[in-house]
Amino acid sequence: MVWQKQILEKLLETKEALSAINSADTRRKNDFLGLLANQLRTRKSFLLEANQQDLRRAGTEYSPAFVDRLTLTPERIEKMALACQEVASLPDPIGQVIWETTRPNGLHIQRVRVPIGVIALIYESRPDVTVEASILCLKAGNATILRGGKEAAFSNQALVELIKYSLKQSGLPETAVNLITAGGRRAVPFLLHQTAMVDLVIPRGGENLIATVVKHSRIPVIKHYKGVCHTYVDRQANLDMAVRVTFNAKVQRPGTCNATETLLVHREIAPRFLPRIAQEFRAAGVEMRGCPVTRTYIPDARPATETDWGQEYLALIIAIRVVNSLTEAIDHINRFGTRHSDAIVTDDLEAAREFLTKVDAACVYHNASTRFTDGGQFGLGAEIGISTDKIHARGPMGLEELTTYKYLIHGNGQLRT
Amino acid sequence: MVWQKQILEKLLETKEALSAINSADTRRKNDFLGLLANQLRTRKSFLLEANQQDLRRAGTEYSPAFVDRLTLTPERIEKMALACQEVASLPDPIGQVIWETTRPNGLHIQRVRVPIGVIALIYESRPDVTVEASILCLKAGNATILRGGKEAAFSNQALVELIKYSLKQSGLPETAVNLITAGGRRAVPFLLHQTAMVDLVIPRGGENLIATVVKHSRIPVIKHYKGVCHTYVDRQANLDMAVRVTFNAKVQRPGTCNATETLLVHREIAPRFLPRIAQEFRAAGVEMRGCPVTRTYIPDARPATETDWGQEYLALIIAIRVVNSLTEAIDHINRFGTRHSDAIVTDDLEAAREFLTKVDAACVYHNASTRFTDGGQFGLGAEIGISTDKIHARGPMGLEELTTYKYLIHGNGQLRT
Repeated sequence: MVWQKQILEKLLETKEALSAINSADTRRKNDFLGLLANQLRTRKSFLLEANQQDLRRAGTEYSPAFVDRLTLTPERIEKMALACQEVASLPDPIGQVIWETTRPNGLHIQRVRVPIGVIALIYESRPDVTVEASILCLKAGNATILRGGKEAAFSNQALVELIKYSLKQSGLPETAVNLITAGGRRAVPFLLHQTAMVDLVIPRGGENLIATVVKHSRIPVIKHYKGVCHTYVDRQANLDMAVRVTFNAKVQRPGTCNATETLLVHREIAPRFLPRIAQEFRAAGVEMRGCPVTRTYIPDARPATETDWGQEYLALIIAIRVVNSLTEAIDHINRFGTRHSDAIVTDDLEAAREFLTKVDAACVYHNASTRFTDGGQFGLGAEIGISTDKIHARGPMGLEELTTYKYLIHGNGQLRT
Repeated sequence: MVWQKQILEKLLETKEALSAINSADTRRKNDFLGLLANQLRTRKSFLLEANQQDLRRAGTEYSPAFVDRLTLTPERIEKMALACQEVASLPDPIGQVIWETTRPNGLHIQRVRVPIGVIALIYESRPDVTVEASILCLKAGNATILRGGKEAAFSNQALVELIKYSLKQSGLPETAVNLITAGGRRAVPFLLHQTAMVDLVIPRGGENLIATVVKHSRIPVIKHYKGVCHTYVDRQANLDMAVRVTFNAKVQRPGTCNATETLLVHREIAPRFLPRIAQEFRAAGVEMRGCPVTRTYIPDARPATETDWGQEYLALIIAIRVVNSLTEAIDHINRFGTRHSDAIVTDDLEAAREFLTKVDAACVYHNASTRFTDGGQFGLGAEIGISTDKIHARGPMGLEELTTYKYLIHGNGQLRT
């Protein structure tokens, strides 16, 4: 029972830090962010060494993509430092009055933004999540529990050491960010039962991780699930624009969750559009997997199977399907999509309106690339991820989405009658 | 496997109604509400007869409080009809633009309020929840799955018949509200696994019901948990106001979740305050259970035991504890409260500020009765209940809290670079 005790002690410690973090003033939180940026820069070699330990241990057991996500480089560390500075520059959401009213009986009611409390991040091999999550949670007045993948244990430990040092130097409790390493595979289910200690769980990772968290959690969860994004080229699309937007959505950075995975094309425009986009895709080395109708226009496309619809390739692969109508496109997306980001290319405003209304996704685009789903691109600042849930936060989840609210009611002796 | 099939068919039916309900215009939704108000009034005897069947079946097996919650009366039915009219008069939240921006690249981004989708209500014996939940969900563009207690089966069936009739008459799919009766005790865990069919679960009821739902659900849950509300009389309280506010918070309607259950009193004001409030409580027949210090001022108070702190009596009983400081009061509330509603009575503005900041509850009051926690009293309109969760909705949960949002992004061919 040693690991349970270790976890509970960490949770208790974190919860005890809450009151100081909840009410920390903006200057102090920004001091922390500045100090951490500085630490990341001056202790780069310490971080790279820790990361080397993880990489050596990983050896050749893992896929290149996995190893890439695990790897820290001087550039990636500099990116973390820049993220600290960016978060420092964002307005502090805590204490904002969202709404207020004075009732006929004189009661003054304010709805005020407050921190959520203790937020647990459960993630895989990316050590940069350790910093991103901690700094966003902290700026929003929350304490953070981190449970990263064991493959990144040395890197995470080193990063948390810098975070704790910076917290202490800025006069904040260093227990406001805690890494949980005990317990092995049993730790996550155990953690997910501690409803008295943790207010929100954010899982970031693959399908299995999310499924495990949803299965075990008694604590509210906001899922950052995969992005199976669609681009639909309508019969009234501008051909040049359709080619440019589709190509960008697939090719510009295929490893991201907002990259398009499936292309839907209206049958009336397919004969003119498909050969043109196929030419671009071929030149960029994109593997095409098409429905039978698609393959009449793109003979070198491989046949798509049922598992291609709804597949998140995160690679230079695209599934292509010709549809008979706008309705068929919408139905396909609502069936196979993950409610992340979907786009229509069309000059028909009525079709665009219908698509944007009926597609059930966090972000729906008219004549633009799905790649724009990003807190920075939306002007919302840094984000902890893209929520594919509908409850509390949808789409890019930034500082505001890491808060809740409470009602403050001031009276002078009002009684209910 | 018959009951599973029955439940899945109902869920599928409900999901298929979504697109019509999601995009229904305000007039049509209000037509439905008007028709239902009319139905409730003209078919009162039909409802009372169905309710009689439930009451006969309940017999003498249940507590008077249970039977009271189960009972329909002409007045209660009229209250439901009035609720329909009230919800019709509320502004339609759907389609509201919450935020918008045009980015330097010309992308126009709107954050727009949309329905959540299919909402499942899981509740106990109160048939009025059937109507309240359905009309609020529907006005916010959602479809509703109802799973009421089996004790109210006839009443719920009759009410849902009127709801379906009114939906049909107003040109909306009658499957937008569905009652699930199959499956017995296994139905709720089964329902709570249907993540593809249900977007949100709202349990309303006792501790066991909530615990069951939280344990089994793979779907996001917003808990409407019990209200263990506190009133704290600070050392600098106005004595007359403290007596009036405390008395109102306990006695005005003790069976509600926003009634005060525990009274905390600063030791410096205890000698003057406790004898006065005890006199009022005695006259009103309130049973007092006090800590040892309390009993030195109220000799007839029964000794409070550890289980009295955090107890929701829903009756004319109050737990009383004398505390040494504001901090002790705050710590007591954060330990034993249910994050619902808590009040401080004081003329010390600094103490009030500290209390309102540090007490972790949906509604925190300064110099007013906890009884005001209510959508109507806050000017928010009708509510589906009081959320004791922090995620998505906190405190009175009205129409806006039954919605989510999506981002609509209009471009003219923007590409990410």
